[in-house]
Amino acid sequence: MDSHKQLKIGLFGFGVVGEGLYRVLQQTPSLKAELRRVCIKHSGKKRNAPESLFTTEKDLLLNDPEINVIVEVIDDADAAFDIVSTALLNGKDVVSASKKMIAEHLEELLELQAKTGRSLLYESAACASIPVIRNLEEYYDNDLLHSIKAIVNGSTNFILTKIFEEGLDFKQALILAQQLGFAESNPVLDVEGYDAANKWTFLLTHAYGIKVKPEELLFNGIQHIHAGDAQVARSRNQQIRLVAQAQKLQNGEVAAFVLPQFVKDDDHLSFVKNEYNGVVIESGFADKQFFYGKGAGSLPTASAVLSDIAALRYQYKYEYKKLYHHKPHQLAKDTYLRVFVSFDDLKHIPREKFEWIEEWHAQEERKYLVGVIAFRELQENNWWRQNNNSLILAADPVIEDVEIRKLKKRSLELAGVF
Amino acid sequence: MDSHKQLKIGLFGFGVVGEGLYRVLQQTPSLKAELRRVCIKHSGKKRNAPESLFTTEKDLLLNDPEINVIVEVIDDADAAFDIVSTALLNGKDVVSASKKMIAEHLEELLELQAKTGRSLLYESAACASIPVIRNLEEYYDNDLLHSIKAIVNGSTNFILTKIFEEGLDFKQALILAQQLGFAESNPVLDVEGYDAANKWTFLLTHAYGIKVKPEELLFNGIQHIHAGDAQVARSRNQQIRLVAQAQKLQNGEVAAFVLPQFVKDDDHLSFVKNEYNGVVIESGFADKQFFYGKGAGSLPTASAVLSDIAALRYQYKYEYKKLYHHKPHQLAKDTYLRVFVSFDDLKHIPREKFEWIEEWHAQEERKYLVGVIAFRELQENNWWRQNNNSLILAADPVIEDVEIRKLKKRSLELAGVF
Repeated sequence: MDSHKQLKIGLFGFGVVGEGLYRVLQQTPSLKAELRRVCIKHSGKKRNAPESLFTTEKDLLLNDPEINVIVEVIDDADAAFDIVSTALLNGKDVVSASKKMIAEHLEELLELQAKTGRSLLYESAACASIPVIRNLEEYYDNDLLHSIKAIVNGSTNFILTKIFEEGLDFKQALILAQQLGFAESNPVLDVEGYDAANKWTFLLTHAYGIKVKPEELLFNGIQHIHAGDAQVARSRNQQIRLVAQAQKLQNGEVAAFVLPQFVKDDDHLSFVKNEYNGVVIESGFADKQFFYGKGAGSLPTASAVLSDIAALRYQYKYEYKKLYHHKPHQLAKDTYLRVFVSFDDLKHIPREKFEWIEEWHAQEERKYLVGVIAFRELQENNWWRQNNNSLILAADPVIEDVEIRKLKKRSLELAGVF
Repeated sequence: MDSHKQLKIGLFGFGVVGEGLYRVLQQTPSLKAELRRVCIKHSGKKRNAPESLFTTEKDLLLNDPEINVIVEVIDDADAAFDIVSTALLNGKDVVSASKKMIAEHLEELLELQAKTGRSLLYESAACASIPVIRNLEEYYDNDLLHSIKAIVNGSTNFILTKIFEEGLDFKQALILAQQLGFAESNPVLDVEGYDAANKWTFLLTHAYGIKVKPEELLFNGIQHIHAGDAQVARSRNQQIRLVAQAQKLQNGEVAAFVLPQFVKDDDHLSFVKNEYNGVVIESGFADKQFFYGKGAGSLPTASAVLSDIAALRYQYKYEYKKLYHHKPHQLAKDTYLRVFVSFDDLKHIPREKFEWIEEWHAQEERKYLVGVIAFRELQENNWWRQNNNSLILAADPVIEDVEIRKLKKRSLELAGVF
């Protein structure tokens, strides 16, 4: 019955994901995939698998002509790129879970795929168990994608949930997340938004054909959020989430960023709590779709890796249709955002940089405003993440260039009335 | 760049879905699929497409050697089966949206696929825009599926939402659904659960390798639900939904049914309102996944049909792995269910058929009880849908055979105390 390619796997990495994958493979004999060898950094450690599987010699995997699939689940992005590119050049298909590596090297990885004709799959790098890349590739490739909004980082979402639901402050919530294994001992990558921004770069490629480096993306984490900000959100029946967003504008460009955002209680993303991830896709034909699931962890990640391995049996490849078969979209630079900024001292807020300000609230300790500001201003300057300022996007934050003049005029008229 | 199969499509049906597909195809030139001909039942009607496309002669499509894909979106299940089977036998791949036809003829369709080697795809027949079949095939084929719970019928879900949120009674809500196009003028198929049961049969095949006819499935619709039942639900922070459920038991069998069910306010399925559909999949590795989207309508359905067409370009087929590559599961018959039954008169309730009764509530007009009853009793007898009785499953309704003795003993002990 089964006329598929026989898979012989060389695995790099035997941490939580690698070991999870080993266990998952043991429990799915129907896949008929054989794990030939595992490459690890340090030998001698006691591992829950036969000693004979392990080696520290990467070439024993990369040059083994019997091995036709390299699975890479290591932590070091530079080493991962070296492994993945060598594997592709050696004619092997590759499954990778390294978001940082993929985000930083996507351009070269696209070239390597085109040049070698091999398949590189990395579903687990996006939202672990949520098959978002596959659905973008398969289900939205022909559809008119209006927007995609997502919670792609479980650590920060866990922390924000605890701040909201249990009234913890940021530090307490972070410690709890670390104790429960939902945050790394060095949490900077998660907390300051790097992890989410990395994921967002290649999701932008699959969704819109956009090629962008993480450092070119407008992003921030949740490190500046104040307890008072959460109170403001609550009083407005909203929550605060770290939202990765991309939205097509009338001129065909795409506004994209990863920033804390107010989310209404009845928004799909409000449903996403604790360590979970969620993706909302709005499109012309399928309307609004919502995918929700575990975005991290040993078995959910291993399960996504396994699905990629299974897809290699029938020679599945990403087609990057939005990049190659359509006219790729450009990132918008001339759009505007409605933002909330809380601050200790007005002198650290450059009022003149706002198009207009809609709300001022002054309390003894913590003050805030709501206003409209150019996207470019946030991308080019840093005042909003300095001096204990905290910037959070309003719900539905994007205001198009074409709307801004109308709104501005109206805003000035109103100002004249009062 | 594009080395894929060139698709030449023969389309049967030009109702809302057929015309939606025509529009969607017009807007996705990148698919490079050519619509060669459309077969309709009645000629002469004015249609929003060139006259020359249409014919009433089905053989002009089925025998055209140039046409390699037949897409069938007609209403008549018998005619649909005739078209689909002839198309497969004539060497064409097929995309179908006819849930009733697929549910009733799945066995023959499996044989035809095996015999001809052609592909039959029918994603749109399940939850329209939610890619549930594809995800079960691709993402859960190797995973240990604990359970799948879903809202698969938008009409009944719209009616239930209106009963709950706007306090309408069943008839008012039905009329509103019909006015807004969310229910057919003849609503029996939806309201009495036939449509949901049809969809559940083939989802059971993809999820668990179970082959079952709709009439062998335990199902009911929402036609017996009373306004008072909704009040009870509300007082318990629950809602009522028509839930299709399948749950793996400790003995490896699968308890499956489509029945009204109490759903806790914080359950994923509570999030699914109005005409939307939702699917919750619980599995060993990926944990809990939730898919949500439009389950009906012209464009969402057409978009799912289009995704199936796009998949034919790379010769995609369902593998039915749970059926062919695993040991298929059996439907459980000896399990127990916790049920709520409301009634006008106790004489219509066979008390002795319950394992035990946990609650009795007697009010002047409408009374109810909560008790545990054998699955088999509901499948073999009809008292619970007669004489104005209304049966609704409790939240988490399945009690396994192995648990029942323990619970029963405890229940009798408690009874002895009082």
